[in-house]
Amino acid sequence: MARNITPREKDYSQWYLDVIKAAEMADYAPVRGCMVIRPTGYAIWESIQSQLDERFKATGHVNAYFPLLIPSSFLEKEAKHVEGFSPECAVVTHAGGEELEEPLVIRPTSETVIGYMYSKWVQSWRDLPILINQWCNVLRWEKRPRLFLRTSEFLWQEGHTAHATREEAMEETLRMLEVYRSFMEEVLALPVVVGEKSEGERFPGAENTYTCEAMMTDKRALQAGTSHFLGQNFAKAFDIKFQNRDGELEYAWTTSWGASTRLIGAIIMTHADNDGLVLPPNVAPIKVVVIPMSPDQNRLQDIMLPEAQKIVEKLTALLGRNRVILDTQFHMRPGDRFFYHLQRGVPLRLELGEAEMSSSCLRAVRRDTAEVLNISFDAVEREVPKLLDEIQRSLFERAKAFRESNTYQVSSFDEFKEVLNKKGGFIKAYFAGTPEEERAIKEATTATVRCFLLDDSSEGTCFYTKKPGGRLAIFAKAY
Amino acid sequence: MARNITPREKDYSQWYLDVIKAAEMADYAPVRGCMVIRPTGYAIWESIQSQLDERFKATGHVNAYFPLLIPSSFLEKEAKHVEGFSPECAVVTHAGGEELEEPLVIRPTSETVIGYMYSKWVQSWRDLPILINQWCNVLRWEKRPRLFLRTSEFLWQEGHTAHATREEAMEETLRMLEVYRSFMEEVLALPVVVGEKSEGERFPGAENTYTCEAMMTDKRALQAGTSHFLGQNFAKAFDIKFQNRDGELEYAWTTSWGASTRLIGAIIMTHADNDGLVLPPNVAPIKVVVIPMSPDQNRLQDIMLPEAQKIVEKLTALLGRNRVILDTQFHMRPGDRFFYHLQRGVPLRLELGEAEMSSSCLRAVRRDTAEVLNISFDAVEREVPKLLDEIQRSLFERAKAFRESNTYQVSSFDEFKEVLNKKGGFIKAYFAGTPEEERAIKEATTATVRCFLLDDSSEGTCFYTKKPGGRLAIFAKAY
Repeated sequence: MARNITPREKDYSQWYLDVIKAAEMADYAPVRGCMVIRPTGYAIWESIQSQLDERFKATGHVNAYFPLLIPSSFLEKEAKHVEGFSPECAVVTHAGGEELEEPLVIRPTSETVIGYMYSKWVQSWRDLPILINQWCNVLRWEKRPRLFLRTSEFLWQEGHTAHATREEAMEETLRMLEVYRSFMEEVLALPVVVGEKSEGERFPGAENTYTCEAMMTDKRALQAGTSHFLGQNFAKAFDIKFQNRDGELEYAWTTSWGASTRLIGAIIMTHADNDGLVLPPNVAPIKVVVIPMSPDQNRLQDIMLPEAQKIVEKLTALLGRNRVILDTQFHMRPGDRFFYHLQRGVPLRLELGEAEMSSSCLRAVRRDTAEVLNISFDAVEREVPKLLDEIQRSLFERAKAFRESNTYQVSSFDEFKEVLNKKGGFIKAYFAGTPEEERAIKEATTATVRCFLLDDSSEGTCFYTKKPGGRLAIFAKAY
Repeated sequence: MARNITPREKDYSQWYLDVIKAAEMADYAPVRGCMVIRPTGYAIWESIQSQLDERFKATGHVNAYFPLLIPSSFLEKEAKHVEGFSPECAVVTHAGGEELEEPLVIRPTSETVIGYMYSKWVQSWRDLPILINQWCNVLRWEKRPRLFLRTSEFLWQEGHTAHATREEAMEETLRMLEVYRSFMEEVLALPVVVGEKSEGERFPGAENTYTCEAMMTDKRALQAGTSHFLGQNFAKAFDIKFQNRDGELEYAWTTSWGASTRLIGAIIMTHADNDGLVLPPNVAPIKVVVIPMSPDQNRLQDIMLPEAQKIVEKLTALLGRNRVILDTQFHMRPGDRFFYHLQRGVPLRLELGEAEMSSSCLRAVRRDTAEVLNISFDAVEREVPKLLDEIQRSLFERAKAFRESNTYQVSSFDEFKEVLNKKGGFIKAYFAGTPEEERAIKEATTATVRCFLLDDSSEGTCFYTKKPGGRLAIFAKAY
């Protein structure tokens, strides 16, 4: 068994790729920039999907499916949208053996084609709101691909809603931001800062973009999910009009919001260590592995295996089907069997060998801390769920403490540069600059405004322009 | 409320489209041949997906994701495969603002790119079997599109497995055929004939193709799912080799199997009627609708609504979240509210008005037969699940009886043509013809060999060539 993960301290990028490789999560595809999500990685996506989907449904959304291919003229109907996306598009020029009259782009995002359909479906205020989400693949051509973080094709969900009023649409935008925040914190154990994007970092075509920003263990920021208030921009571009209660025609107000397979990258760069992946129990497809072992093959088969099976059954009843697995890789040495699951991030390992049979106590090893506990056979159903909760909580707290200890408030550009160079992390500062000034800061430092904090409405002197009325922002180097 | 569904007897094609439109299941997309699956339709797909996925996982399969784009040279590695698929491909020639060195096709199916990846993952017999499934979109350019049945883009699942021996791969092929059969019969209430495709109807690149064939209410056949034994064809084309237990290099044996959104078309054309969609309870996203009503708005709010809510809660506990809905479209007349759910195929309607309140009995109306039953408030939890089972069983039996009464055995080509012209349906006949003779029959009659029956190994004189040793086949006009 290869244990060749480059230490995180030595080379973060290589460590990241090694973790993915060791856990067999993904591979590059034959087409440059595209990826293959292998079963270990895809099971995490399924877990994300089912739990996010449940939260979308609980907030009144339904799923639908819109087409992959979009006439290229559609993108041009919203000026900022085409400017933002057309350089990244893949274009279909031929199909069915013929050249197409109009080239088609593979969706980079679906506001345009969905706007076109909504204009057909919406006539009256009674048809609103439309609260639709779609799970699909999108394509944005990527010159510097990186597994899960930046690939030409990726999987995501995109919510698209239409409302009768500005207020309702804004409420929806913030509701979905909160759905993302609570999901990321409760399920993925990713502490996130929620905030509003600056003008320079907005979604092309949005009036406001809201974001969840997480700090990775190399202190860089990662945008984990965004929710856009689109105003009437797309409604005007695609003619989504409705008759209001007074019989007057109005344009609808729309929102969109999305999160992607990038979240898997965020999980790795928040929780994984030099032994490989570490999964928070709430998102882990496999929460517990039970490992029966004995040097004596007969005892293994007749004694340890049946006992282990009993434990798997008990825990499965509590934790759900396929959530607890039995390791039967008897051709491997115990250490290699342990490492196999360690690399794949299984939160809890329960060992059952000769010593454990004698004491009627399992040896439980936490993936996050390597801490060892003894759990008596009788107490498994009580102790294991508690332990999983403790692992979940502890991973979140660790990540949050890391972020907090790497967040600095500054009040001048000199201080900003010094902190950025010497310490890295999140820099908090009052900011009142223009998009041009944002760009100048980025060019000088490579750091960008991640967001203006939503939970802080204080104002202060801008660290960069020295103008008054700056809002509190987070800057960081970002993925 | 429009009740404008063209009667099935008058124009079957228009009836089919009208049912889809009335239930708001799907729309044509702006790109010719592509479709938008609206929430009512997509919820059916989600129900199919989750139940099929459960059966795939119960038979040891895991999910993964392979890329949308495939280098066009990959298709050419398997001669029959490229011949079958390249005329239907959509081709990406430009991406990221540049012309690509090699054109990329949008996957029409993924044997090639998956074969390429498997060749990297498989080294030893210990790496086998690989049992992977993928849920995704595929594209096959369609000149005569038809919602759900033939669209340029559609959603499906494609299983791709690799095995160490021919026997294992063949077992897998037939295991998945049985998974399809049981799913279609038990969940979709679609009686299917399972059989082997003739040489002329095989999947391009397969050694054998097995199929589930269903009869629609216009007596045409619909291929509802297929399972392919690929032999070593793709293993040789993509170099999937492994070291066997004796240390020798061998090519793997592969299979693939798929079912698609076409199943939704099959549900419509098996169960729907002139009032609209009819959904078998086991696949219906909404199984029961409860309709409180009263001419007196106060009584409606204070008496019927709370009682209806109680019933929804009780049934939800039994049938699952979102499976039982409360109709609160109080601005509509009762008849229109009934029709709204009728058109959408909800299996059971429970009415709760003044008469029902007085008698403490709900008026239950079956979607499949329009039969009315009274269910006392107290008996809801006992009677409703029983009634849903009865609807499920009855829909299956009705479809099966229809197929059986429209299946004819013939022994000569004259008889064949006569039955086909005067009666339609499935024609059973012993057949021993060549692919050329199959084509001749198709040209003369438009009927095709749907399959050779798997559960009948008898032999007889070929109805067409009069040669001995014919196998029992089903012929039909097909979708």
